[in-house]
Amino acid sequence: MKVDLCLKSNHVLNVFSRKFEPNILWINKGKIVATSSSTDYSARRTLDYANQYIVPGFIDAHVHIESSLLTPSELAKVILPQGTTSIFTDPHEIANVAGIEGIQYMMDDAAQSLLDVFVMLPSSVPCTPFEDNGTVLTASKLKPFYQNQQVRGLAEVMDYPAVAANQADMTAKINDCLAANKQIDGHGSGLSRRQLDVYRQHEITTDHEATTVQQVLERINEGFYVFLREGTVERDLENIIGAVDEMNANRVAFCTDDKLVSSLLTEGGINDCIRKAIQHGVRPETAYTMASFNAAQAHQTPFIGALSPNYKADLVILDDPYDVKIHQVIKNGHLISNHDFETTSLKFIENSMNFTLDKDDLKLPLKSDTANVIQLIPNHIETNHLIQKVDVKQGNFVPNIARDQLKMVVVERHHHTGKIGKAIVNGFRLTHGAVASSIAHDSHNIIAVGTNDADLYAAIMHLKKIGGGITIFDQQQELATLPLKIGGLMSDMSYSKTNQKLKEITAAYKSISWPIDFDPFITLSFLALPVIPTLKLTARGLYDFEQQKFIDISC
Amino acid sequence: MKVDLCLKSNHVLNVFSRKFEPNILWINKGKIVATSSSTDYSARRTLDYANQYIVPGFIDAHVHIESSLLTPSELAKVILPQGTTSIFTDPHEIANVAGIEGIQYMMDDAAQSLLDVFVMLPSSVPCTPFEDNGTVLTASKLKPFYQNQQVRGLAEVMDYPAVAANQADMTAKINDCLAANKQIDGHGSGLSRRQLDVYRQHEITTDHEATTVQQVLERINEGFYVFLREGTVERDLENIIGAVDEMNANRVAFCTDDKLVSSLLTEGGINDCIRKAIQHGVRPETAYTMASFNAAQAHQTPFIGALSPNYKADLVILDDPYDVKIHQVIKNGHLISNHDFETTSLKFIENSMNFTLDKDDLKLPLKSDTANVIQLIPNHIETNHLIQKVDVKQGNFVPNIARDQLKMVVVERHHHTGKIGKAIVNGFRLTHGAVASSIAHDSHNIIAVGTNDADLYAAIMHLKKIGGGITIFDQQQELATLPLKIGGLMSDMSYSKTNQKLKEITAAYKSISWPIDFDPFITLSFLALPVIPTLKLTARGLYDFEQQKFIDISC
Repeated sequence: MKVDLCLKSNHVLNVFSRKFEPNILWINKGKIVATSSSTDYSARRTLDYANQYIVPGFIDAHVHIESSLLTPSELAKVILPQGTTSIFTDPHEIANVAGIEGIQYMMDDAAQSLLDVFVMLPSSVPCTPFEDNGTVLTASKLKPFYQNQQVRGLAEVMDYPAVAANQADMTAKINDCLAANKQIDGHGSGLSRRQLDVYRQHEITTDHEATTVQQVLERINEGFYVFLREGTVERDLENIIGAVDEMNANRVAFCTDDKLVSSLLTEGGINDCIRKAIQHGVRPETAYTMASFNAAQAHQTPFIGALSPNYKADLVILDDPYDVKIHQVIKNGHLISNHDFETTSLKFIENSMNFTLDKDDLKLPLKSDTANVIQLIPNHIETNHLIQKVDVKQGNFVPNIARDQLKMVVVERHHHTGKIGKAIVNGFRLTHGAVASSIAHDSHNIIAVGTNDADLYAAIMHLKKIGGGITIFDQQQELATLPLKIGGLMSDMSYSKTNQKLKEITAAYKSISWPIDFDPFITLSFLALPVIPTLKLTARGLYDFEQQKFIDISC
Repeated sequence: MKVDLCLKSNHVLNVFSRKFEPNILWINKGKIVATSSSTDYSARRTLDYANQYIVPGFIDAHVHIESSLLTPSELAKVILPQGTTSIFTDPHEIANVAGIEGIQYMMDDAAQSLLDVFVMLPSSVPCTPFEDNGTVLTASKLKPFYQNQQVRGLAEVMDYPAVAANQADMTAKINDCLAANKQIDGHGSGLSRRQLDVYRQHEITTDHEATTVQQVLERINEGFYVFLREGTVERDLENIIGAVDEMNANRVAFCTDDKLVSSLLTEGGINDCIRKAIQHGVRPETAYTMASFNAAQAHQTPFIGALSPNYKADLVILDDPYDVKIHQVIKNGHLISNHDFETTSLKFIENSMNFTLDKDDLKLPLKSDTANVIQLIPNHIETNHLIQKVDVKQGNFVPNIARDQLKMVVVERHHHTGKIGKAIVNGFRLTHGAVASSIAHDSHNIIAVGTNDADLYAAIMHLKKIGGGITIFDQQQELATLPLKIGGLMSDMSYSKTNQKLKEITAAYKSISWPIDFDPFITLSFLALPVIPTLKLTARGLYDFEQQKFIDISC
C-alpha cells in the first residue's frame, strides 16, 4: 500500500513505555497507519530524521483561548509552530458575553485551523446568580453540544456549593455530560480534602488548581488527573513539579489556563511547561508523555497523543529534546509552514457594547469621609479590604492621587440595564487619566479606573464606540487602544498586531502612572469577580466576599 | 456523617502513584466515600489493620468462566476468597451452545453473587461459517446487550481476515460496540506487526495472546493494553513478565483466560499471577496495581480498582504482600465470609443434548489401509498430521491399542442434524474403554475417543441421558462421570463436588490408559477446533488447517 508520508528516526517516543526507540512512522490521510519497518507499505515521501527526536504533538489540557486576546484561528498561528497540536478549551469568557452563539463562534473559527480545538462546555455562566452577564447557560442549553465530537465534556466545575447541595441545574449539567460518555473537569482551588471527596463522588476527574506539592499529591491520591499550570499570572509549575515522579507521572499533564499573546510569543505555552519540567529533573521521555498522551487520557479522548497506529499524525520533530528545540511540527500528517495559516475573520456580533451612560452617572455620593476601599494586591487576584479616610466634595467622592485613592466603575454592558457599580480603589498608581476595559471576569462588563470623571467617561464611551477593548485616556484624549471587537474580549487583528497594540497600551498606562510591577489590565479584569476574596466591585455595587453580600461604600 | 465502615492501615496502596501509604478509608453503601483522617465522618464499625496491607480487589482482565466447569456464582465462591472481586468474562462457550439465552443465563446467575462479573460479548459464534454449533450470533443479536451496564464491550476479536476485509457483520459488531462507547478486546495470537496495525486501525485495544517478551513489547508499542496470562494450560506469565518495567507497567494487567476449578483451588487465579510477578522482581506496589486498576483502565470501566473516593469498596487486606497472603476480602464494603455464598441453581435449558445415534453410525469405512491420522501434542492445542498404516476389517477402521490408533468421533448435538465426524487419533494412550465429553471447542458438540465402538456408544449415550458432561466407560460400564448439566459445559454442583468428580474422572481415565503427562479432557476438547493447526475433527469430518478444507481419512 502506498501512503502519504514515511518518517524515520532513531529516537521516536513510545509514550506507553516512556522510551525513545528507533522507529518508522507510516502516515496516510492524517493518521499514523503503521509503525516499524514494512514491506507492506511504501511512501510517496520519506523524511529521515535519523538523529532528531520525534514526539507526539503537545496538548494543552486546559486553556481559555480568550485570555490570549486572540481568536482561536489566530492563536493557532502562535502555538502550532510551538508544537501544540491540540488544546482543550473552555470558552467561558465568550459564553458569558454571547452564550451558546459565543461557543459556536469559537468552534466555527477554530475549524479554519489545523489546530485541534476540543471544547469543554462552560459550567458556571454566570459565575453567581447575582451577576449581570450576557446570558444564563442552563444545562438544557449546553446539552445539544455533546453531540459534537469536538466537545469532550464539562469544563472546570467551580461552584462547589451547588455540587455539594445537588442543586438541580448543576446536577443536570453533570448528568448530561456523563450520559454523553464525556468527562468533567474540576476547579478545586482551595478545596479541602473533604470537598475534593465530594467532587470525586460526582465523577469530576481533573483539577488544575493545585499550587503546592502537597495539593498535587493529595489530588493524585484522590484519583484526579492533575494539570500543572503555567499561565501569564498563575505560575504554579515550578512550585509543584517536584510532586511528579516516574510512578505517578501518568496522572499528570500540563496546561496554560490563561496566557496572553505576549507571554506566548516570548516564552511559549506547553513547550515552556516541558522545558521547565525537564530543567527541574523530569526525564524528557516522561515530560513529553505528560505533554501529550496524559492530557488525552485525562480527557478520555482516544487516538491523539501517541505515535502508534490509528493515532492522528500530530507530531513534533526536535533538534534537542532537553531544550524543546523544534525542527518541524506535523499536524494531521501535514508539515506546518506559514502557508497553512491563511484564515479569514468570521462574522460575529458586530458590537456587544449595549449600554448608555451619562457623565453624571459616574458620581459617587458618600455619606461620610470614611469608606470601604478595595486594595489590589500586585500579581494576585485577591484584594484587601481597607477602611480609609477619603476626600468628599459636595457629598461626592473625589480621587486623591497622592494617597492613590482612585475611582473605579463597572458599567453593565450586555442588556442596557443601566446598572453602574462604583467604588474606591487603592493600588493602581495612576497619576493622570483613566483606563477602561471590556474584560472583567466573569461577566465582562466595562470596568474602568481613573483619576477623574472626564477621562473615565471618555475612555468608557470610546469602548462603546469601537465595540470593546482596552483603552487609555488622558485629558480626554486617547493615548492608546487595543480594540477587542470579538465580544469585547478578543482581537480581530493578527496576533502580531494584537501583540503590538498590547505593548502600546502597556506603555501608555506607564506614561500616566507611578512605576508598577504588575500587569494593570489583568489585575483590573479580576476586580469585578465576586467569587474571589475579599472586596470586589460588580455592576450592582461593592461586594464583600467574607460577608457574602453587597455593602455600602461609606462606613 | 455516619458511614458503614472505617478501615485504617499504615500501608494502603495508592495505585495512582504505586505507593503504600498510611491512609483511612471511609466506606458507605458499598463505596469508598472519603479517604484520610476526617472530622466530617464517623463510622458504625472501625477496623484497624495497622500493620497489614490494603490493596484494591483483584480483577481478572479476561476469563471464560465455563473453563472452570463452574457456574458464575459457584466460581465466585472459589475466587472471591482469593481476592478477585471483579472479572471480565467472555461467555463464548455457553453462547456457542445457547446463544443470547446463554449470555443472559450467565449474567442472571452471576447477579446472585457479590463478584462483579463484567461481560464482553462473544465476537465469533460460531468460530467458522462451516461449524455446527448451537446458534449464530450476529451483530444485531449482540447489540441490545450494550444497554446493560455490566456489558463492557466486545470480546476477543479473533477473526483477523473478517476484520481486515471489513466483512459486514464483523464491521457491524465493532461499530455497535464503539457507538455504545464500549471497548474491544483483541486476540492477537500469532499476528504479525502489520496485522496488529490493522487491529489498531479498527480500535481493538487489548491483547492477551502474547507469549514472548518481544510480543509483549511490540503490543505495548502499538498501543495495546497487554494482559499477561496464566491459565491451566496456557502458562505464559513467567515467560513474559520480564517485559514489564516501571515505565510500561500501567499498560499491563493479568488474566487467567481458561482455568479449571482444580487449578484455581490448588494454585489460585489472579493471586497466583501477582505472586509469580513479584517472584520475578516486579515491585509489589506495581504488581497489585496491574492486578486491579490497570485491568479496569484497559476496559474503560470507571470506579473499580483503586482505593479512592467514589470507587467501589472492593479490597483485600493482606498479611504479607510478597506472598499474597490474604487476611480478609471486602467486596462492595462487605466482609466476605462463607455466609455470603448461598446461591441457588437457576433454571436453564434442561438438556442440551439434541441428537440421536445408532451404534452403526460409529463405523468408519476406509478405502485403504493408509490413513490421515491426528496426532495430539501433549500440553498443546495444535496437532500433528500423521500418515500411517492402520487396521481395516470388512472395509472399516479397527482401533489398534499397541500402536495407539484410536477412534475419535464428533457428534452434532445441537440441532439433530445427524452429522457425525469420525477420525483416527494417536496419543490418547487408552488401553480399554472410551471417554466422551460435551466440551469440544468452540461448537461444543459431543467428542469421544475410544478403543471400541461399544464403549464409545455407551459413553456418548450416557451423556445424552444426563444432559452432558465428561464420562469414562469400560466394558459398557460407567467408571466415572462429571455431569455438566448447564449447556453440557458447566456443573450444576458445588465447586467442591465438581472438583471431586473431576478427580474421579481423571483417576478413571488413568485406570484405562498408559501413563500420561497431559490433561486428557482439555486436550480432547480442543481436537474439534478447526481454526487451530493442523488436523482437526468436526461433525462434518476431518479438517486440514493447512489446506483449509475437509479431507478424506483414507489416503
